[in-house]
Amino acid sequence: MRMLINVPETVVADALRGMAAAYPDLTVDVENRVIVRRDAPVAGQVALVSGGGSGHEPLHGGFVGHGMLSAACPGEVFTSPVPDQMARAAAAVDSGAGVLFVVKNYTGDVLNFDMAAELAEDEGIQVAKVLVNDDVAVTDSLYTAGRRGTGATLFVEKIAGAAAAEGEPLERVEAIGRRVNENSRSFGVALSACTTPAKGTPTFDLPDGELELGVGIHGEPGRERRPMMTSGEIADFAVNAILEDMPPHNPVLLLVNGMGATPLLELYGFHAEVQRVLAERGVAVARTLVGNYVTSLDMAGASVTLCQIDEELLRLWDAPVRTPALRWGM
Amino acid sequence: MRMLINVPETVVADALRGMAAAYPDLTVDVENRVIVRRDAPVAGQVALVSGGGSGHEPLHGGFVGHGMLSAACPGEVFTSPVPDQMARAAAAVDSGAGVLFVVKNYTGDVLNFDMAAELAEDEGIQVAKVLVNDDVAVTDSLYTAGRRGTGATLFVEKIAGAAAAEGEPLERVEAIGRRVNENSRSFGVALSACTTPAKGTPTFDLPDGELELGVGIHGEPGRERRPMMTSGEIADFAVNAILEDMPPHNPVLLLVNGMGATPLLELYGFHAEVQRVLAERGVAVARTLVGNYVTSLDMAGASVTLCQIDEELLRLWDAPVRTPALRWGM
Repeated sequence: MRMLINVPETVVADALRGMAAAYPDLTVDVENRVIVRRDAPVAGQVALVSGGGSGHEPLHGGFVGHGMLSAACPGEVFTSPVPDQMARAAAAVDSGAGVLFVVKNYTGDVLNFDMAAELAEDEGIQVAKVLVNDDVAVTDSLYTAGRRGTGATLFVEKIAGAAAAEGEPLERVEAIGRRVNENSRSFGVALSACTTPAKGTPTFDLPDGELELGVGIHGEPGRERRPMMTSGEIADFAVNAILEDMPPHNPVLLLVNGMGATPLLELYGFHAEVQRVLAERGVAVARTLVGNYVTSLDMAGASVTLCQIDEELLRLWDAPVRTPALRWGM
Repeated sequence: MRMLINVPETVVADALRGMAAAYPDLTVDVENRVIVRRDAPVAGQVALVSGGGSGHEPLHGGFVGHGMLSAACPGEVFTSPVPDQMARAAAAVDSGAGVLFVVKNYTGDVLNFDMAAELAEDEGIQVAKVLVNDDVAVTDSLYTAGRRGTGATLFVEKIAGAAAAEGEPLERVEAIGRRVNENSRSFGVALSACTTPAKGTPTFDLPDGELELGVGIHGEPGRERRPMMTSGEIADFAVNAILEDMPPHNPVLLLVNGMGATPLLELYGFHAEVQRVLAERGVAVARTLVGNYVTSLDMAGASVTLCQIDEELLRLWDAPVRTPALRWGM
């Protein structure tokens, strides 16, 4: 086990202590596992709350701040946070304008955010939800009914967060979040498995020289396993899988996301290949983001997410954001 | 071999194509391997040029932009760039105010930057140099006479870059860069080796359950090898090694840097332990940066860098910066 940890039991709490010390703009409640913008609640603004299993950092805690999330609830590694956590986060950030839950489509998350919505509504908080289910690789999987939520979560949180920062009402922020999700698709590949601290051994067995096409962000099985392919071949496969599901009609936001252990040097090269395929398919790239944003612990691999955008979504994407992991315009 | 590449021979060129497509603020000369600020040369400002072997991304190309580097020269993986590259970069960014070379202390880099300085001076460009040699782990190593240059490179580039952006003359920018290096120390640990594309197998053999204390950023051997330690024990060892070499006298800038394959979740937890040790030793942390900044391909592990700062260096650290990997205040 090659882990930089104390003991598996304290990994999430240790990480939260580390985030608290790293980011003075955040308030981190280590005991209750809630990460909140220090200036929350922000008067007159809808608040965005997301969360999910830990192990995908910087998602979600690294996206808390002006123009994106108001709060994040980290669960145990690859395990949904609990309803109490989410309701507590909602109460901490609600200004009276309501709260939007951004929920990745995994059975545990969906159930728990539903229960949290009831708890929050009992406290008089208006709640709406956006479900993120962008992964075209498989329909049902180990942890989901329907498609998994992966890279598009970043797009939903950034763009809906910008709408909230502009003072849009809850139903508008929700509608914008849904529009982003509906126009987003992802496809991921794994070159290695990942290892959770609790288990201490790889979550699945991927022999050297093979890759998993269509893998999920917890190492869930994908579409198929093949002998190793080149970066260019993987880009062809991933982009074509996305465009087959969502024919190109608009310019796109492009996210080329590293799963955690793939060097940035390789990720840049993969990005070049993804750009080549998009150019060949006549898809214009309006904006591009390359880096480790929605990770799977120490998994090697990458994912591609496309969001077909219109003028309004692009303007909201470009709007100022100030979070640990995404920052521009301020 | 679990790499997201086409063929080993094109890894650096592919990555540069990918950077060119990702960052409209940069001009990337893929053929000559020079990454330049799009708005260079900037009238009246000293230009900073750095470079070194590839495989440490985002260093150096990700630090090109306002308030930091004017240009970067990536070599082959773990191999110095050549003098022609560096001289070409200097010519591209010199406004007439002179160029500061920021050089990590590795034999190849030092020789080649020396030759590049001669080439540039022959063209009438005024050149100064700052050598970065912050790694306290070992005195001489596989690639160096004297100490290795590692994490402090980021501090030197950011702070000297801010001085340049304020219009300071070359000798002042150089003096500030030297002051940052003189007050900085680093210590790194590896939990796994890294694998270069050309070799395809790990650069050294580190059995599961052991770690290398004092490792270099190319996997050079460190001080000693031990059975796996906890995050807290590693933090104690690293911080004490640094403070033994440089007794605390000022508040510090703290960089907790991931080597590439260590999940951010673990890095945050390690950061918490480093903060604990610093508090126990009575060292005040003025600013902290946690993330993958000076990496070693797919190596698992982390490094700690401290820079003991004064008011001027802190002000320059806080000054606006706008690069792919470091961005604030604009």
